[in-house]
Amino acid sequence: MKLTTLRTASGTVAARVDGVKAVELTGFTDVADLLRRGDLTAVAGATGPEHDLATADLAPVVTTPGKIVCVGLNYRNHILEMGRELPEYPTLFTKFPESLIGPREPIQVPPESDKIDWEGELAVVVGKSVRRADAAQAEAAIAGYTIMNDITMRDYQYRSPQWFQGKAWESSTPLGPVLVTPDELPADAELVTRLDGEEMQRTRIDDLVFDAVALVRYISTIFTLNPGDVIATGTPGGVGHARKPGRYISPGQTVSVSIDGIGEVVNVAVAENVAGAAEKSPATVGA
Amino acid sequence: MKLTTLRTASGTVAARVDGVKAVELTGFTDVADLLRRGDLTAVAGATGPEHDLATADLAPVVTTPGKIVCVGLNYRNHILEMGRELPEYPTLFTKFPESLIGPREPIQVPPESDKIDWEGELAVVVGKSVRRADAAQAEAAIAGYTIMNDITMRDYQYRSPQWFQGKAWESSTPLGPVLVTPDELPADAELVTRLDGEEMQRTRIDDLVFDAVALVRYISTIFTLNPGDVIATGTPGGVGHARKPGRYISPGQTVSVSIDGIGEVVNVAVAENVAGAAEKSPATVGA
Repeated sequence: MKLTTLRTASGTVAARVDGVKAVELTGFTDVADLLRRGDLTAVAGATGPEHDLATADLAPVVTTPGKIVCVGLNYRNHILEMGRELPEYPTLFTKFPESLIGPREPIQVPPESDKIDWEGELAVVVGKSVRRADAAQAEAAIAGYTIMNDITMRDYQYRSPQWFQGKAWESSTPLGPVLVTPDELPADAELVTRLDGEEMQRTRIDDLVFDAVALVRYISTIFTLNPGDVIATGTPGGVGHARKPGRYISPGQTVSVSIDGIGEVVNVAVAENVAGAAEKSPATVGA
Repeated sequence: MKLTTLRTASGTVAARVDGVKAVELTGFTDVADLLRRGDLTAVAGATGPEHDLATADLAPVVTTPGKIVCVGLNYRNHILEMGRELPEYPTLFTKFPESLIGPREPIQVPPESDKIDWEGELAVVVGKSVRRADAAQAEAAIAGYTIMNDITMRDYQYRSPQWFQGKAWESSTPLGPVLVTPDELPADAELVTRLDGEEMQRTRIDDLVFDAVALVRYISTIFTLNPGDVIATGTPGGVGHARKPGRYISPGQTVSVSIDGIGEVVNVAVAENVAGAAEKSPATVGA
């Protein structure tokens, strides 16, 4: 099954994707709400208002995740080509829901940063509450998969030892276009990131050091994962900041991330319209 | 004004502290709910069921923050004594609300970690939505102050370059006992952390490199801060992990953090009761 979240005049609503149509699942405000209160089997045949998926106004597939956990360097081929050791433990950081945008919505480029980079990622959406999951529990807790472009302001990322401030900009992070249940994700699926059509990242998603089950197990050791929580599994090589010279996203450019079986997020970068924000770096010592 | 959040048979409820009494503010489920929907002036004279504050069952003063942003090394004297440069920018990371416990509730010591450390901190509670706040807007957006003990599992903190996984353990982080409005916090207030009564940390809170206003300004550059969001401003010197030999919190020990004008969080560490969790480090490469 494929699920999505639509924006309508009366707010967001979860929808089931039937081919080229999105069928509203009335009563569920987004896919997370459906995962928390609903039943995927029960909505498999539900009827409701229909929309053309190609032109529908898509919200982040999960609009209100309780938690977004992101994983650092996690692609084996990229780690090895960089001459690094495979990590013993995943590197984890977070975003807040305020960062999320829909799969076709503009990425807001803030005036404070000019080092805006792409990170195409497979994202896991949790469907059941789990703590200290074993492998079978972890697998059963995965509702499905979607795509995140973990847009990163590299200048802010490296202002301090912790990456969070480069990862958390408001309205920067596409999530969607759909959640696919695990049976719909091909084992040999590839992830491809493009900037204005030029290929920047390509990997098979089965090259993850810590796969979805391992991540649910590890993260749920630390705290309970709940329905609607999102885990972004990390990005492969090919980010702009690692290129020589570095490449970044400018307003007007389009960045896309596709994964076989899921689809594509395609987002135009736009300069954020901020009155009086020309001043950069407002807070320094003594500010 | 001082505000707190009580646990009652019917759920949590915000309360106003009048001397030794906590007066329920019926209709508000916690202090964050009051900040989002209520009016501090209007509740100043409200009446309701009264509780003895000394024996009341206190929840985290904010039970459901939309965001918890934590600040790294931020005390001037501690940075300088370590021979480091004062930072140009704050170091930011996060916790999730699942970490929070009340000011007198037990700290859950998970079987996976034996390096559990204290970090007494002044915490800011946001009262207004702000983005790219100037100094006056930032000051007006501060609803008040409380205490956080940013309990940290040092072994997990240093498993990877990002600290988050050492900071985010479920039911580990006391927050409370009350929110005091800014007029109630003495400028020369001291923070003191004790382990079984032995003083471990002591600082004046006015020694922060980035004070509350600077932090609201900086963080709100990146995303909107909303009522009920919490900013933990960082810890001074004296943590257990920096001692030689290192000192950590064991089950049965009591750790307290007090700040003049706010009060004290006092928490006993207890071994978490986990069936079958004797196995440590469940997720490694290839798990």
